[in-house]
Amino acid sequence: MMNSTSKQAAITKIRIQDEFWNPFMELVRGTVIPYQWDALNDAIADAEPSYAIRNFRIAAGLEEGEFGGFLFQDSDLAKWLEAVGYSLANTPDPKLEQTADEVIDLIAKAQHENGYLNTYFTIKEPGQAWTNLYEAHELYCAGHMMEAAVAYYNATGKRKLLDVMCKFADYIDTIFGRGPGQIRGYDGHQEIELALVKLAQATGEERYVKLAQFFIDERGAEPNFLVEECKARDGYSYWTQKKQSIPTVAQMAYNQADKPVREQEVAIGHSVRAVYMYTAMADLARLTGDESLLTACRRLWDNTTKKQMYITGGIGSTHHGEAFTFDYDMPNDTVYAETCASIGLIFFAQRMLQLEAKSEYADVLERALYNNVIGSMSQDGKHYFYVNPLEVWPKASELNPSRHHVKAERQKWFGCSCCPPNVARLLSSLNSYIYTSSPVQNTIYTHLFIGSEARFELAVGEVAYTQQSKLPWEGYVRIELTLVPQDPFTLALRIPSWSQGGAIMKINGVRTAYETVNGYASVERQWEQGDIVEWELAVEAQLTIAHPAIRANAGKVAIERGPLVYCLEEVDNGTPLATVSIDVMQKLQVNYDAGLLGGAVVIEAEGHANESSSWSEDTPYRPFTLQEVSERVNLKAVPYYLWGNRGVGEMTVWIRKGGV
Amino acid sequence: MMNSTSKQAAITKIRIQDEFWNPFMELVRGTVIPYQWDALNDAIADAEPSYAIRNFRIAAGLEEGEFGGFLFQDSDLAKWLEAVGYSLANTPDPKLEQTADEVIDLIAKAQHENGYLNTYFTIKEPGQAWTNLYEAHELYCAGHMMEAAVAYYNATGKRKLLDVMCKFADYIDTIFGRGPGQIRGYDGHQEIELALVKLAQATGEERYVKLAQFFIDERGAEPNFLVEECKARDGYSYWTQKKQSIPTVAQMAYNQADKPVREQEVAIGHSVRAVYMYTAMADLARLTGDESLLTACRRLWDNTTKKQMYITGGIGSTHHGEAFTFDYDMPNDTVYAETCASIGLIFFAQRMLQLEAKSEYADVLERALYNNVIGSMSQDGKHYFYVNPLEVWPKASELNPSRHHVKAERQKWFGCSCCPPNVARLLSSLNSYIYTSSPVQNTIYTHLFIGSEARFELAVGEVAYTQQSKLPWEGYVRIELTLVPQDPFTLALRIPSWSQGGAIMKINGVRTAYETVNGYASVERQWEQGDIVEWELAVEAQLTIAHPAIRANAGKVAIERGPLVYCLEEVDNGTPLATVSIDVMQKLQVNYDAGLLGGAVVIEAEGHANESSSWSEDTPYRPFTLQEVSERVNLKAVPYYLWGNRGVGEMTVWIRKGGV
Repeated sequence: MMNSTSKQAAITKIRIQDEFWNPFMELVRGTVIPYQWDALNDAIADAEPSYAIRNFRIAAGLEEGEFGGFLFQDSDLAKWLEAVGYSLANTPDPKLEQTADEVIDLIAKAQHENGYLNTYFTIKEPGQAWTNLYEAHELYCAGHMMEAAVAYYNATGKRKLLDVMCKFADYIDTIFGRGPGQIRGYDGHQEIELALVKLAQATGEERYVKLAQFFIDERGAEPNFLVEECKARDGYSYWTQKKQSIPTVAQMAYNQADKPVREQEVAIGHSVRAVYMYTAMADLARLTGDESLLTACRRLWDNTTKKQMYITGGIGSTHHGEAFTFDYDMPNDTVYAETCASIGLIFFAQRMLQLEAKSEYADVLERALYNNVIGSMSQDGKHYFYVNPLEVWPKASELNPSRHHVKAERQKWFGCSCCPPNVARLLSSLNSYIYTSSPVQNTIYTHLFIGSEARFELAVGEVAYTQQSKLPWEGYVRIELTLVPQDPFTLALRIPSWSQGGAIMKINGVRTAYETVNGYASVERQWEQGDIVEWELAVEAQLTIAHPAIRANAGKVAIERGPLVYCLEEVDNGTPLATVSIDVMQKLQVNYDAGLLGGAVVIEAEGHANESSSWSEDTPYRPFTLQEVSERVNLKAVPYYLWGNRGVGEMTVWIRKGGV
Repeated sequence: MMNSTSKQAAITKIRIQDEFWNPFMELVRGTVIPYQWDALNDAIADAEPSYAIRNFRIAAGLEEGEFGGFLFQDSDLAKWLEAVGYSLANTPDPKLEQTADEVIDLIAKAQHENGYLNTYFTIKEPGQAWTNLYEAHELYCAGHMMEAAVAYYNATGKRKLLDVMCKFADYIDTIFGRGPGQIRGYDGHQEIELALVKLAQATGEERYVKLAQFFIDERGAEPNFLVEECKARDGYSYWTQKKQSIPTVAQMAYNQADKPVREQEVAIGHSVRAVYMYTAMADLARLTGDESLLTACRRLWDNTTKKQMYITGGIGSTHHGEAFTFDYDMPNDTVYAETCASIGLIFFAQRMLQLEAKSEYADVLERALYNNVIGSMSQDGKHYFYVNPLEVWPKASELNPSRHHVKAERQKWFGCSCCPPNVARLLSSLNSYIYTSSPVQNTIYTHLFIGSEARFELAVGEVAYTQQSKLPWEGYVRIELTLVPQDPFTLALRIPSWSQGGAIMKINGVRTAYETVNGYASVERQWEQGDIVEWELAVEAQLTIAHPAIRANAGKVAIERGPLVYCLEEVDNGTPLATVSIDVMQKLQVNYDAGLLGGAVVIEAEGHANESSSWSEDTPYRPFTLQEVSERVNLKAVPYYLWGNRGVGEMTVWIRKGGV
């Protein structure tokens, strides 16, 4: 079903079977998708209404009423539908498919004759399409619906939504361009660029790649389109509903449009916009061989992940504009680290892996996935964090306005609810992040250790294998080759950075040397059907320190084990957590706690706590003496992704270092 | 000149002669007052215009134009004039007095026939007086002008402004009250309450005390006046210039008007409003003997100073509304700690001392004065901090919006420029904070150790003495009695908390025992003219720790010596300061550095710095090993009040604890 130009293994050929991940995917299928369907239909009591379905019904002429929600509300339905597509590919579900078919009919009804599709402009500002790309997210919404169309088509073979979106894409292609009468511009919120690449892959239509490239190439060019567009609107702003002063070109850094993308040095501005754009840049670099774009991708990757990324894989340090700030500025308490931004980072990492298999991309992908992203969802699949803090003091979240955005509890649904459906679509398409393959080089890369059945097309022929994995709890992976070609090919297994080189390969029970290429253990040989590759990774609980320029983590350590970052919670360690320090001279104790939230490895450590009882309540400050009392305490750390599932309390990832 | 009901020593009878403080007062007289006069006249290049004088000229009919600046802009002129009054009392200056007389003429011309005075309502909203007490600061501006009138009258004996303000007060007294047709309400920003007490003291008019009490008693009563007033305006807001939803009673906590003042348990809301109100409450408790008010004052004092005060005497943890947050929430980086709030805290402390001489009030007064307040002004007297942080990372101030309000450099003038003139009026009236006396109990309390000549009226007769002080650099105070009555009286010298009990009294060279009463060394005896009291205070450099519930200071120490809090600056200690820890096992070294900004004691300490060079730039996180490299460094701490006078750089008060 996939276009033959695809350089990526087909999603439909990889099926996850994994003890750790199946429950998440089942949660998405059984709970999250139905729950979000209710949310899109405004059927969740006490949660903010979405209006998304209602907007489509109004736009389709089936209902009367006002547009509701944000002007990008269409994208929530799109992301849900995309998740449904992935889910159906994994697990057929006729009832869900019928619901989806019906909503696709509704979407088609809301499409204009010329192909245009956007409920906000249809209902609220007819005739005003393409007049406010800076703010109005039209191409952004289009992009999300294109992604949904591709996912649904890939899963079901049904073309209806794909045709709707191709028609829209064709229309967009007439509106935007460098020709006379065309708009030489781009969206204020990147997204359509990566979506057009997917649409091209699904349809084989190269024009969509060119359109994506047009958007990327025009971005930040002079004269600045977004600024000129604001001038043409006389400064009128949708958000304030009045005229504003015209923004400067420099202010367009928020939209990564202050300079051409190839000249951008650091990750800046709205973090989701940024990583969605980087994803498309990497796509285009791969498809077009554009070296300047590849160079920019590597540079922006480095800055994002080496100077602006939290240990949890969170990005974006400030809630003001949900944005990056600057190198090494990673406050743990006033953090943003939006769920969607980490998901976008995962997209970017995936595309970089498709460009060049370097384990550092997969290291980051894994970090964001196992920590920030799955930590954003509650165990019941019905509550979500938008902001993923590394430190929480619930009372401060409530009473200090600088921390209001940091919720101590996952929320039911958000007025701006981009994150929950983004999690759903990521988790239900998780199979597409595990491997890449290079058919030409006859190499299969295993990036993530997630149990799965996989099938690849290489130049030498078809390969199939089964991966079993005990991660994240144990460092054991077993691959059984079930179908092999006549000629040799290469298996390349990622050596995770957390294994610190402790990675042993056995083939059919015999320890085997491997070549390390860009962080992958590579073995080229004539494989036999039934060959067993065992991959033993050192999964040691370890303390991690941060670069000295990250002020917020000075004098502190974090606990990690394998791909998981750990944290201390009040429920296990009391309060205030800030008074606790960890004795770094003592060994960390690792225990599997079957009773903890579905079972998890917990890490215990020795530490000290300041003796609060030696303080009288009315003494805020007192002289330090060498007799200050502290008591030995046992600390218990749980995986970060599980935090906040046992009531509201303090949490911290970074722990003061003691004992030295 | 003072009214005989005054229970406080007359300001004019205390004259400061002090090596440390005279330069500050001279700076105010010679530089700050002229500079601020220029500012009020919009004559400072590159600084935001004030419009204050221009507004008065327009209101007086001498000029045409629009009202400029904030609607409380009148108060800037008032505070300047108040400072001028104090300054003239200290140091006659005919030219300055003439300028003041002229501006008083201008103010008088702007007064309405009925006594009303406010340039905003006169120019911009004639006929709308008293319709928006919630937002419009009318009584607040009136209060500041009353304070100015009293100060100017006390200094010069000239009644013109006093008469203007009495006329206005009399008019206000007809408008507000519980009678038919009167407004049973109060200002959104407390200030007039304490000012009316001063006006009563200057004039002997008891009605003004009653009016102050009316405002205090009505505040927070049901039905809530401010809420009802908003309803009557149909929610119209000055700040947004449109209708808003009606605020709730609970939201009036911002204005300390959500419940009657006697029922308020914690410091909450806008911090300047709060401490101005507490000041008036303490005044009224003293003048009326109202025990319920005294109880509330003590409770609010305790909460403010024991659970919500920074070590520098700063209060108000958040810039959102310049407000208190909650107990023990004292972030060092996103701090507010507004200069005006600490000045208000000093007013509150002074009034509590007038109520009851307990050294804890003076300890706090001194802390706020020697650290937050004088630290807010640059050495040149022309640049000011509005926000007084305990930790600064200049790049974060610039690039992280949560820290934009924390300036790394003192600013020339502010659009909302409440702080600079507030500093001027405080410093030029510093003589009034040194002593209180109880004529009935024949006791003179010395709260601050500031060289001065003082004269008091006790029941037994007049007392005069000269205080010499080597503080803050040395712990030596010498008092020489120059006039004594026939009968015994009590000298009570504060035993500062920082002396940790190391306080030796000598009378005429002979070590003398004293009784400690509420933190004061009390000696009652028959004093002789020429008696010399020496007061030797232990001024040791010491490390201070914070209550464990103050999360921000966990694992950290501050350096203090005598009344001064110290800090590390980048210019002395490099960057990042967060990587530095202080070795608490080693002695602190104290040196007087005559070359440092006019001369100051600096404190040197041994410490460690993380070896940044062992980090590659592209490694944000790495495993901790026991071989982590750090280097021994010598740390140099300077008094907090001097920070930021040697270029822009990092600064921190709290330092990570090392060595144990």
